[in-house]
Order: sequence, then structure tokens, then C-alpha cells
Amino acid sequence: MILVPGATHRELINMEPIRSVQWSPGSDRAVRIIDQRRLPETLVECDLRSLDDVCEAIRTLAVRGAPAIGVAGAMGLVASLWVWREEPRAKLLARLEHHAAAIVATRPTAVNLPWAIARMRAAAERARDMVDGRSLLDALADEASAILDEDAAMCERIGEHGAGLLMNGSRVLTHCNAGALATAGIGTALAPVYVAARQGRRVEVLASETRPLLQGSRLTAWELGRAGIPVTVLADNMAASLMRAGRVDLCLVGADRIAANGDVANKTGTYALAIAARHHGIPFYVAAPSSTVDPATATGGTIPIEQRDRDELAQMAGVMTAPDSADVYNPAFDVTPAALITGIITERGIARSPYDFNWSAHS
Amino acid sequence: MILVPGATHRELINMEPIRSVQWSPGSDRAVRIIDQRRLPETLVECDLRSLDDVCEAIRTLAVRGAPAIGVAGAMGLVASLWVWREEPRAKLLARLEHHAAAIVATRPTAVNLPWAIARMRAAAERARDMVDGRSLLDALADEASAILDEDAAMCERIGEHGAGLLMNGSRVLTHCNAGALATAGIGTALAPVYVAARQGRRVEVLASETRPLLQGSRLTAWELGRAGIPVTVLADNMAASLMRAGRVDLCLVGADRIAANGDVANKTGTYALAIAARHHGIPFYVAAPSSTVDPATATGGTIPIEQRDRDELAQMAGVMTAPDSADVYNPAFDVTPAALITGIITERGIARSPYDFNWSAHS
Repeated sequence: MILVPGATHRELINMEPIRSVQWSPGSDRAVRIIDQRRLPETLVECDLRSLDDVCEAIRTLAVRGAPAIGVAGAMGLVASLWVWREEPRAKLLARLEHHAAAIVATRPTAVNLPWAIARMRAAAERARDMVDGRSLLDALADEASAILDEDAAMCERIGEHGAGLLMNGSRVLTHCNAGALATAGIGTALAPVYVAARQGRRVEVLASETRPLLQGSRLTAWELGRAGIPVTVLADNMAASLMRAGRVDLCLVGADRIAANGDVANKTGTYALAIAARHHGIPFYVAAPSSTVDPATATGGTIPIEQRDRDELAQMAGVMTAPDSADVYNPAFDVTPAALITGIITERGIARSPYDFNWSAHS
Repeated sequence: MILVPGATHRELINMEPIRSVQWSPGSDRAVRIIDQRRLPETLVECDLRSLDDVCEAIRTLAVRGAPAIGVAGAMGLVASLWVWREEPRAKLLARLEHHAAAIVATRPTAVNLPWAIARMRAAAERARDMVDGRSLLDALADEASAILDEDAAMCERIGEHGAGLLMNGSRVLTHCNAGALATAGIGTALAPVYVAARQGRRVEVLASETRPLLQGSRLTAWELGRAGIPVTVLADNMAASLMRAGRVDLCLVGADRIAANGDVANKTGTYALAIAARHHGIPFYVAAPSSTVDPATATGGTIPIEQRDRDELAQMAGVMTAPDSADVYNPAFDVTPAALITGIITERGIARSPYDFNWSAHS
């Protein structure tokens, strides 16, 4: 994976894709991730081996994005158990329970994490006949690999379904990063953009920077630039004036959890964009794998919203940006009601209100 | 001006007020400002003497806020001419024209700057009988002092008119800084908050941080904290979810220019807040001295919007936050149409749509 700033558009979109999560080439089942905290300045990969490595990487957003943390959680579960692969099956299963619970607890909002870990538990259950730990771990590694591969395939399908919404010259506003860095494939919200570019259409992306952690300006702008897709960074608060100026054709965002009624939890700021899009009559689409739908959550009101540390807003690169005397409100996500969403693009197609998620992978 | 972090609420709101712009105590008519680029970390004042000092301070936002840059521009004009006070009147008047044009050109959007400079030119015109430069400069200094004093008095009136909108326990969302730091007095949008607090009511302020330069978290949170008024900092993109949660009673913002039809140019992000407030049925008020109304501007569509440097969004404290390959959209202001504004609070009272600004100071 090499940055080629001087390469032409065609070379860039054909070059090796970004792999935000993959197995490390070694034989020890470590998980190799791009350390997204370092982008866009430096492209660094690191290998996660222990439970602490995995939890820390997810908690500190070294790996992030709802689909990617599902994949990283499943693969990380295997990585974290690898050192105990010679233990008897029962002992390993007890460790698995402990590790699974720790990984699920790292971040509460995205449903992909508990969903992926539930698949791993089910795989362990199916492997109950295996007497030795090594065989069990191999079965778990196969399941994690399947989750990885399925995620990449779902991204492709989402891209194909969504690309039809994009014409030559379309200007797409996106928020946060729901691209290759957020998934094991070409992304969710950005997948239609990549597919449309592959089909030869020129699509321009407007990337709201996404305070406080700037996933839009740091990550979305980086991965699109690398792919030769024109991108303009703006502060979150500037999107509405671009809409008013007629410079936004479509909004496309990802999702961390979709309630049964179609309410969507996504990165903080999504809701404000959806309100502004409605005010200006601009279509507002959400793109996510169907595993993001949580049938156990009836409406967005019951989705747990992660509150993050005050320093994400009170400091920047070590400089104080708010006085110590001030309180800080720092939710990582907000909920956009289904009524503001034009459609939800999944690997199965584009769903529109009223939502019928009976096809969900959970059901 | 001393920070007293341990002082009680009562002591704090009674302590010496913030003076964002004042005459330096020396006899040379320098302009003393608080260097707002250094807040909230350090409270530093500096004295502006030359034309370069004045223009640089305004352009780099060491002094900012529409009313304050009007005051600083007028006083800075005197300061920048002081070294030539012994010159003949005609020569000084030629310099005045040059300096006035340079000061007006520093920032294009706020009307207060050309308004204040126009007052200074008119004062020079009235002083045409004075033969020596020194007397002319004294007359100009008197006019600048009058602008300073009038601004402080207008803030008080705005505060009195607006305080009636605030009940005990009111939660006010504001954007950017339209407080004491932005004026020669107790602010515009924050004036009603200070007056209500003075009257014994507990008002809580929600300060959106205001990307890219964080005037909300750096300045509004600092000056309210100093006054013992509870303040919570949030990212701009989080205001809508607070509104949805029923945690905002009222929005109060300042203005850089108000068109004859009531459209308001103010800090970028104001428009998005006004849309969200309308969506949630929350009153949205603008507070500004009547000199902010520009009768020469029929609608908001013709207000010049300052575009600022890409590095304000592409870097933070020396750290790269967007790749070099990305374009950056960085307008300093946006326009909120009159239809989204519940009322405009000036020193004359609260005006409501349809606006009749015949009382404007310009007419």
C-alpha cells in the first residue's frame, strides 16, 4: 500500500485497494489494521495480538467505522485467543466468553460489533465437537474470515445499488468516513461513489470535517484523494450554506445502528445534515450492510449513544480550546428519524419508508 | 483585568468588566486590545500603534466581532495617524484617506467597520476649520471615543430588551462569540444573558464551538465562565440533537451585517442552527446594534462573504487535518434569511418581520 500522489486518476482507482482490516501475513493470526489516528499525515499499519491491543485499537479509534469494528472485533477475538491455542477446548471457551464480552464493551452504539461477536459465539457453538483448542480456533478464524469477506462483498453490492443515484457531475455530501477505511471493502456511503467512478462518471464529494475527531477531513478526504476522486473539505456548519447555494445534489451517509422503524444512529452531525437536506429538498440516503439493522431496537430513542471524553472538544493537538470551567457535551452519535431519510441502501437494494426489515440478517 | 478562578459567582459578575478595546493609558493614543488569538489559555493585552498593527490585528482576529472591529477600526485610525500629528492638516487628511481605505479593506463582511470609518471621515469633514493636524486628530479621537462609548451603551440597551426573553432556568444556545469580547460593552447576543444574571436569574448557555476558529469554545466559554455563568461547549454539529432532546429554549446570535429585508450575515454555521431551530419550533433571535443594519444592502444575497485561508481547516495547531490533495471551502460567514428569524434585538427594541429599519443609524 503506497501513496502515489503524482499518479493519474486511472492509475489510482485501479491501484491496490485500502485494507483497513486484514490478517497479518504471519502465521499467528494477528490482525493488521491501518492506524487511522495517524492519517492523513502518515500511513501506518499495526498488528493487534492481545486482547488489550484489540480493545485499545477499537476504543481509541485506531480502527473505526461500524462495519470495520465488527470485522476487527471478530478477527481480534481469534487473535487474542491464539496464544492459548494449545489449551483444552473448555478452558479456551471460558476465555472466549471473557474476551468476547470485553470486545463488545469497547463501544456501545454500532450494532455491528455485538452482531459480529454473536456470529463468533454461534460458530464456537457449532464447533462443539472439536476436542482441541486449535481446531476450535481454526473454525473461529474461518468464521471471522467469512465476516471479512462478506463485508467486502456487501460493500460492492451497496455500491452497485447506490451508483444508480449518481449522474455524471453529481455532487455528493457525506459526513464522517463511511468509506474503505470504515469497512473491509469499498465502504458503505462511499461505495456508490467508487462504483460510479469505476463506471466512468465524474462524481465530486463534499466532505464535512466531522468534529471532534475529523474523520471527514482526515479520512474521507484522504481515501478519496488517493482514488483520484475530487473532494472538498468543509466545516460541518458550512454544509447548509452549500445546500442553499445549490451545490449539493445528494447526501450519502453511513450508519452505526438502524432501528426496526428506520431511525438511524450515525456519527454526531448526521441529524443536522438531514434536517438541512429536508429544508432544501435534497435527497438524503443512508448506506449500510443489512447487519446494521437491529430488529431488537424498535426506534432510535432506545439506541445507546456513546458519550466521549471532554478533551476531544477541549483540546486540539495539545492546545487548550475550551476553558477548564466549561462543561462539555460530546456524544459520538446522534439519531436521525426515518422521516428525514429518503432511502436506506443495503446490499439487498434501496429500502424506502415504511421500512420492512424482515430480510434482516438477524431474523 | 485579572482572572479569579476561585471567586464566587457574585464577586465574578461584579468584577471589572472585560475591555476588548480601549485606549492605552499612555498619552500616545495607542489602542489596547485583548489578543483573542491567545484565549482561553492566556489573557494578553497588546497596544496597536501603526497602520500595520491595526490591520494585522483585525485581519488575524486578534480583535474580532462586528461591533469591536468597528470600534477598533475607528480608534486604530487615530492611533495610526498619531505619529504624524504635527503635520499640516491637508497632508494628514491625505494620510487619513489612505489609512481609512486600508482598515476598511481588512475584512469585507461586517458593516460596522465601513460604518465606523464613515463616521470618522464625517468627523474629519466637520473639523475642516481646524488648521493644525493635532486639533484634527483630537477631534477624531473624540469621535472614536464616542463610537466606543455608544457601543457600550447600545450593548446595555440590547441586554435590557433581550433579558425579557429569558426566564429563570432558560437554556440559551449561542454560536461564535457575540459577547464582551466582540464589543466595547457586555456584548450583543450575550448581553441579555449578562443582564438576566445581574437581575438574579440563572441562565445556562450552550456554546457551539464554531469551527474553524473556535470562537464559541475559546471565547464565549471563557468570558461566561469568568462571569460565573454556567456554560456547556458542544461541537457545532451537536446543536440539533440537543434541540431534539428538549434542551434548548432559545437561540441568540450576533450579526455582522443585516440587510434591509432582515436577512442576516453572521458567523458560518448560524444558518444551519436557524434551520434546526425552525425544525424544532425553537425561537431564534439575532442581537446587534442598529448600526449593523445596512440599508444599502437590499437582501442577504448581495452581502460580500469573506473566504478565509484553507489552513484554518486543513491544519490545527500545526497538525495536518486534511490532505493536501483536498480542496477546502472556508467561508467566514453565511446568510440566514429573515423568514427563519423570530426577532432582531437592537438598542431600540425587538424588531419582528416584516422589518422596517427606517430608524437605522445610516438613514
